[in-house]
Amino acid sequence: MKSLKDKILTEGKVLGEDILKVDGFLNHQIDVRFLEEMGKEIARRFSDVQVDRILTVETGGISIACEVSKNMGYVPVVFAKKTKPNTMAEGCYSCEARSFTKGTVSNLRVVKEFLPQGENVLIIDDFLASGEAGVALVKMVKKAEANVVGLGIVIEKCFQGGGEKLKEMGVRVEALAPIESFENGVPNFKE
Amino acid sequence: MKSLKDKILTEGKVLGEDILKVDGFLNHQIDVRFLEEMGKEIARRFSDVQVDRILTVETGGISIACEVSKNMGYVPVVFAKKTKPNTMAEGCYSCEARSFTKGTVSNLRVVKEFLPQGENVLIIDDFLASGEAGVALVKMVKKAEANVVGLGIVIEKCFQGGGEKLKEMGVRVEALAPIESFENGVPNFKE
Repeated sequence: MKSLKDKILTEGKVLGEDILKVDGFLNHQIDVRFLEEMGKEIARRFSDVQVDRILTVETGGISIACEVSKNMGYVPVVFAKKTKPNTMAEGCYSCEARSFTKGTVSNLRVVKEFLPQGENVLIIDDFLASGEAGVALVKMVKKAEANVVGLGIVIEKCFQGGGEKLKEMGVRVEALAPIESFENGVPNFKE
Repeated sequence: MKSLKDKILTEGKVLGEDILKVDGFLNHQIDVRFLEEMGKEIARRFSDVQVDRILTVETGGISIACEVSKNMGYVPVVFAKKTKPNTMAEGCYSCEARSFTKGTVSNLRVVKEFLPQGENVLIIDDFLASGEAGVALVKMVKKAEANVVGLGIVIEKCFQGGGEKLKEMGVRVEALAPIESFENGVPNFKE
């Protein structure tokens, strides 16, 4: 998605060797009009498959998942939780995932009722790096005996292996801005 | 908002004395079409004031804040973070807030750059209970020398005092579904 690549080049900041900061329009401050465009583009890329439900994970994935839903007939969005609130009593599917940018391990949880068996589930997230969250979400869909139709991502850091891992699991991955490397602090996009 | 009150009565679950669970359409699974309606209604209630920016807090407030923004000329949305990711290096405004449903204390943070001085800021959140998060967000806006034009809330549990606390601070509070009490597990809405 050219407009996203341009926005990353002008507004993104590369920290150290492998961190891309897009706090100005996605991860802290949100450019809502641009969010709509990104949601529309992810939905377009998966327009060839039947999607019954969108699964994402708090926090980064939620707003983009809602935009994708709007372009897919308003299918329900479910987000995996990282902490267990005292309102979450029922049986859950759970799976551990490490956060690349926070250095923490979360136990992702989805209440069973919100991942019905047999549905076609599109997984959405903002970033794909080492693939920890993506793999955890795929495993939860499989535990629920539902089908993963794909993983839609805003920014993929291809050099961190998550995309490969997911493709080996048979998951179709579509990233709006796949980054092959950072060269002198500048993202180098995959064609 | 009648449609929300009806939805709470049919789909919400009251746990114990004071917890309302709306995981089926707002806090875990999201009904995106209904989210749009709620965003539109909050924006309508604040249509008499100039809003330059929306401030919310992860996770619950983000998706509704984006919907409000769309109905206010796509003003930027900024969400306070509860954990400090390694991409957050610059100066922040920060303030402590306890979570009513999680029993934890978070240090909410907003990068200074995303709360410019002198702007009119509308604060949005999903729940207002004891008002910890709301008060913290108001304090951050004041630290930034910006103006709080109000607090737009989806569900207010009026009996937990947060609304009163904020009104005493001079903050205009608009809640789509203000709940006065729970009677035998049924929410009793304020007229």
